[in-house]
Amino acid sequence: MILETVDYIEGGVVIIDQTALPSEERILRLSSTDDVIEAIGSMRVRGAPAIGIAAAYGMLLALENFMKSSDARPAGYFFDRREGTSRIRPAGIDPEGAVGILHDAASRLAATRPTAVNLPRALERMVKAADENRYDSSRLCERMAQEAFRIHEEQLENEKSMGVNGAALLRDGMSVLTHCNAGGLATAGYGTALGVIYTAHARGMKIHVYADETRPLLQGGRLTAWELVRNGLDVTVLCDSAAASLISSGRIDAAITGADRIAANGDTANKIGTLGVAIMCERSGVPFYVAAPMSTFDPCAASGESIPIEFRSPSELIYFNGIRVTPEGAGIYNPAFDVTPAGLVTAFITEKGVIYPPFGGKIRQLAGRAL
Amino acid sequence: MILETVDYIEGGVVIIDQTALPSEERILRLSSTDDVIEAIGSMRVRGAPAIGIAAAYGMLLALENFMKSSDARPAGYFFDRREGTSRIRPAGIDPEGAVGILHDAASRLAATRPTAVNLPRALERMVKAADENRYDSSRLCERMAQEAFRIHEEQLENEKSMGVNGAALLRDGMSVLTHCNAGGLATAGYGTALGVIYTAHARGMKIHVYADETRPLLQGGRLTAWELVRNGLDVTVLCDSAAASLISSGRIDAAITGADRIAANGDTANKIGTLGVAIMCERSGVPFYVAAPMSTFDPCAASGESIPIEFRSPSELIYFNGIRVTPEGAGIYNPAFDVTPAGLVTAFITEKGVIYPPFGGKIRQLAGRAL
Repeated sequence: MILETVDYIEGGVVIIDQTALPSEERILRLSSTDDVIEAIGSMRVRGAPAIGIAAAYGMLLALENFMKSSDARPAGYFFDRREGTSRIRPAGIDPEGAVGILHDAASRLAATRPTAVNLPRALERMVKAADENRYDSSRLCERMAQEAFRIHEEQLENEKSMGVNGAALLRDGMSVLTHCNAGGLATAGYGTALGVIYTAHARGMKIHVYADETRPLLQGGRLTAWELVRNGLDVTVLCDSAAASLISSGRIDAAITGADRIAANGDTANKIGTLGVAIMCERSGVPFYVAAPMSTFDPCAASGESIPIEFRSPSELIYFNGIRVTPEGAGIYNPAFDVTPAGLVTAFITEKGVIYPPFGGKIRQLAGRAL
Repeated sequence: MILETVDYIEGGVVIIDQTALPSEERILRLSSTDDVIEAIGSMRVRGAPAIGIAAAYGMLLALENFMKSSDARPAGYFFDRREGTSRIRPAGIDPEGAVGILHDAASRLAATRPTAVNLPRALERMVKAADENRYDSSRLCERMAQEAFRIHEEQLENEKSMGVNGAALLRDGMSVLTHCNAGGLATAGYGTALGVIYTAHARGMKIHVYADETRPLLQGGRLTAWELVRNGLDVTVLCDSAAASLISSGRIDAAITGADRIAANGDTANKIGTLGVAIMCERSGVPFYVAAPMSTFDPCAASGESIPIEFRSPSELIYFNGIRVTPEGAGIYNPAFDVTPAGLVTAFITEKGVIYPPFGGKIRQLAGRAL
């Protein structure tokens, strides 16, 4: 049930192109940092944890290509996650030059998408590993690879722990609403919100998932439904605007979403529309859970007001597969995220456990420890 | 500013094909009752008042074609709204046979879409006119044409009165959110919710309209934006799910929608997603107005629970312009309408005036008088 959403194989970043799903399962090999930047910007790879991993791999790829360009006898690749760091062969590179290239790559990767904190956090870890080894090329190579693979593998472990912690909140026969895609495609391959549902399913609970289609890019209809069907779960897709009557009708037992950044007080930035789901849930007395690893918590953001919200291109609403669906002359309001106030969150499902209100102290304590 | 959404011209029903907007302004001539049924079912003509008028014209077309088939010397057409009833020439028809045909047409037209009450109400008026004149072919022709044209023209007058009554609730510089299309395209040509805004605009108020795009068929992005731009108003289109954060941000001064059927207690069925807008407005203290003619009130429905909700084809969510956006194996939940409880409605804007809570007695009084 682990999707190979993003990986580092034989000297390149390999992703499932999420813009082509569900009609085509297109695997892309990204061979430069610029390719990774394009893939994050155009959402070929998306989801806060997945873009954190992709950004780390974008850094490793910058190093890989610097090593290749410095190698007198270029022979194949340097890094591969499956091989780990065991057989990294040294290359005759100038480590300080490499670190300069890595800083440049980090700042360009950081500029791709502003809201998810996993991205700058992964980059900070990679930059720190680079800076600490700027005078030793062998050690630089080893630590950069180690750190990138760790970011990936820690995330996958965290998803499994979140699954276990979250599944304890579900019961056999429940109907669960989710918004956007917080599954294997958004993460290291298992999922945050959907990881919880996968774990419940694996334990024999029958969970019916209602997936908001999630305009404008339809991550719910295209991606969440695709991975749930693939994994043998029951899923029903609805328009985002149909969630209000579905929740009001009493047919939803819980909502679970992922998150892109969670402030120190628990305010949660996530895909546009999450706020609406949370408000409907509160009004109908339905629990609203946010599943996210501790790396999505940002103790530096005191509240949601400190979280930068990305506005994406108007073309996402003007065109659909090249056909004009909004007339010339109309303005477009296209924020990619909204902020759900902490007061609407029933609990956070993390790899460290389930966090109930009041959140402030607990988030600071756990996030401080995790950082 | 009056759109020729639906009309009866030279013996045929003429509509703007709303499925082709905004990329193409395609005018269709419907020459049989079956054509009208297809146009209502596939939403080439849509909006509660507009489908009421289209249904009345579908009846008139049944009579027109019966007269043509009975005419020994077929010469042109029988009915035309611009000519009114002044020059209707009698045809040698069997009036009882015609009434049989009209009853059949009424029951087939009634089966097209269940939620908007304007449709059965228009058909009841046409059937009554037929039944009362079943023994006099001249009188039958005259009364049927008179009734159909009256339904159209009364609706247009009502829209102008609603505009005047509603504009008094707006102020220069306001931002108004609307959902779906309750403009000229949905009505006799001026609009209910948008008619209010057009009247405010004509009085020199600058109103900025935010239009929810309204999945699955995008009536907001495609139709509301198209007619507002055409009429020189400022409009910004957003995803339905972006309304929550927009309203919460304090940037919306009022929301105005249309309605498909309003129960005796004020519960309001309207396009799916209206309930969500109303809930967000309540939470943020933003007035939520429903603009609808008295013909949309249904005193026979005690509450929203008595209003039949249409579920439309899953294909509306599975495909977009022929491209698959939801995978095989996923279920689809596609209600076309939801019910907003009366408690969330700040006021109804009608041609008889603005109705504030408590609604029950006032609705029964005004609707009883209007029927």
